Amino acid sequence: MLECYNCTLELNGLLASQNVDAIVVSTLVNVRYYTGFTGSNGLLLVTRKGPLLLTDPRYTTQAAQEANCPAVIVKGPTLKEVAKRLKALKAKRIGVEDQRISFALHRGLAKLGELVGLGDAVEKPRWVKTPDETVKIRASVALNSQALERAMKHFKVGMFETDLAAEIDYQMRKLGAEGTAFDTIVASGAHSALPHAKPRRVKIAAGGYLLIDMGACLNGYMSDMTRTFGVGEMPRKALRIYKAVLEAHLAAIDAVRPGKLATKVHQAAVDVLKKHGLAEYFVHSTGHGLGLEIHEPPRLGGKAKTKLEEGMLVTIEPGVYVEGFGGVRIEDTVRVTGTGVEALTTTPKGWTIAG
Amino acid sequence: MLECYNCTLELNGLLASQNVDAIVVSTLVNVRYYTGFTGSNGLLLVTRKGPLLLTDPRYTTQAAQEANCPAVIVKGPTLKEVAKRLKALKAKRIGVEDQRISFALHRGLAKLGELVGLGDAVEKPRWVKTPDETVKIRASVALNSQALERAMKHFKVGMFETDLAAEIDYQMRKLGAEGTAFDTIVASGAHSALPHAKPRRVKIAAGGYLLIDMGACLNGYMSDMTRTFGVGEMPRKALRIYKAVLEAHLAAIDAVRPGKLATKVHQAAVDVLKKHGLAEYFVHSTGHGLGLEIHEPPRLGGKAKTKLEEGMLVTIEPGVYVEGFGGVRIEDTVRVTGTGVEALTTTPKGWTIAG
Repeated sequence: MLECYNCTLELNGLLASQNVDAIVVSTLVNVRYYTGFTGSNGLLLVTRKGPLLLTDPRYTTQAAQEANCPAVIVKGPTLKEVAKRLKALKAKRIGVEDQRISFALHRGLAKLGELVGLGDAVEKPRWVKTPDETVKIRASVALNSQALERAMKHFKVGMFETDLAAEIDYQMRKLGAEGTAFDTIVASGAHSALPHAKPRRVKIAAGGYLLIDMGACLNGYMSDMTRTFGVGEMPRKALRIYKAVLEAHLAAIDAVRPGKLATKVHQAAVDVLKKHGLAEYFVHSTGHGLGLEIHEPPRLGGKAKTKLEEGMLVTIEPGVYVEGFGGVRIEDTVRVTGTGVEALTTTPKGWTIAG
Repeated sequence: MLECYNCTLELNGLLASQNVDAIVVSTLVNVRYYTGFTGSNGLLLVTRKGPLLLTDPRYTTQAAQEANCPAVIVKGPTLKEVAKRLKALKAKRIGVEDQRISFALHRGLAKLGELVGLGDAVEKPRWVKTPDETVKIRASVALNSQALERAMKHFKVGMFETDLAAEIDYQMRKLGAEGTAFDTIVASGAHSALPHAKPRRVKIAAGGYLLIDMGACLNGYMSDMTRTFGVGEMPRKALRIYKAVLEAHLAAIDAVRPGKLATKVHQAAVDVLKKHGLAEYFVHSTGHGLGLEIHEPPRLGGKAKTKLEEGMLVTIEPGVYVEGFGGVRIEDTVRVTGTGVEALTTTPKGWTIAG
């Protein structure tokens, strides 16, 4: 069972501060965060009577085992049950997760009362990780590094990208992960210039990059790491780009500290790449938070207005992508500490020739 | 590249039939279906000027390779670009996927014109599979069966559930799957009574069921199969339940034919289980369509009003779950033919003792 916030305290506070009679949490990952319930159908209804988890008969046993609040098993549409309970309480103002609620549920709830968009109030507690969450993410990061190390022992020049990806995922699972945090990227040669490349049934050949972006899901918590290797003899240009990206990566990590605007971390990476004439090839943001989801606030991008806080965990992953040649990305997970930054990822990141 | 409907024809027809000036398709799987684009950020805008794919700079190369319509690379918010184009066309009525659009996008679009909910009009073409899609799902189903066969060669009594799940997923990938269609379920002993159980670091012991629910994703198309084995010496009750579920499974397959209400297929399974006094332990519906998504219409449940049509592909998966004892589910994928039904899954389903 997930140790997590006590919904009574946390969400009862929201009832008062947002001046609503009820809060409907329908985003599954938020339901999990507050209740510990991990099923695929769950809705959390918070009223002055306390929190209540609504799910369906498939989860009778699981809800009883996992949820830290009372659970109701609903046969048929959940919305009907919500309506019944809101009417009994004469609830008028209903708080909803306006950024993530489905339009269909929103339309249904709008018939029951006045909807109040809660903005990021429901999710904000998730941005700063609790000590328990940090322990879990550390374990996920460590497992991820170990899986890469084990998988690379099976690497051979001429291996299919898909087979290396399968090996990576297998090692994660054997080490105890529930699964991957996202589809593992193994991209070689010019294909590494696609930031979100899918592994192909194509042989990994000498003379090109090998980019691996991988993450594990362990006890519900995600990890995320990218390494880029050379394969066999590499052109000089490949090393030059790699060194520039590594310099940008290290500069961005150095820029992390509490109280700093997230965008400044991105700027630190951009500045280094600009110096090397490579900024135009850096087409995404420098990083993102992670936890129960692989992408969470804060975003470390050009327009990121969030201030970093102690206890936030973020990835640092600048990249340079040259169409027709290849791409380099180097990604670690780091923690904002009370005074600066702590790197969680331990996998080496010097220029390495694989195979 | 995905061969798929020509958006010009299909969605231009919708422009007229729904009397709208524009259609915004924001559900990624629908964007993929119509355009062939597989990136993680894409929006399809259809107007009298034709279809247009909007995505971001990460996908410049991929959009050019995959999309069957013109693509625009948008830096910054996609909504701004949509607004610009709708204004230029003086579009007033905008069709949206009201069941799946995010509330946030809906709110943004509502400022640009009158929103018209298209119900299931955008998705409905996906319910009946094209010949090309059927070929792809057949291949996914075949791969899934082969992966189970290979994985079971590694099965030993006393193995962890998680290690068997890892083996299954690894075999899928080695056979060429992009990944799993969903988190593989390996549930043994009393844990098999949880319809959506997660694999545990727990040894699979003799005397209990071993339930495996697995699916592959191959070329974007899903497969789905469940088999339940006995492990070592089993109590009589275990075989009795298995036989009842198998009888219900076969009766439901027999009930599939074009023109029939989907609920009748569910009823066929329920009737058999009722006869055996087990209907109360069957807590979910009998099956669902599958394709680019693992759960698609038609649903074969108690209230399913859809009529089956030639070319639909559905799973047939009745189950019986006895808390504290265990659960049995047997699931195949079948195709509605012109006159009846064709089974796609070839894995045997007689009572089998593993290990």
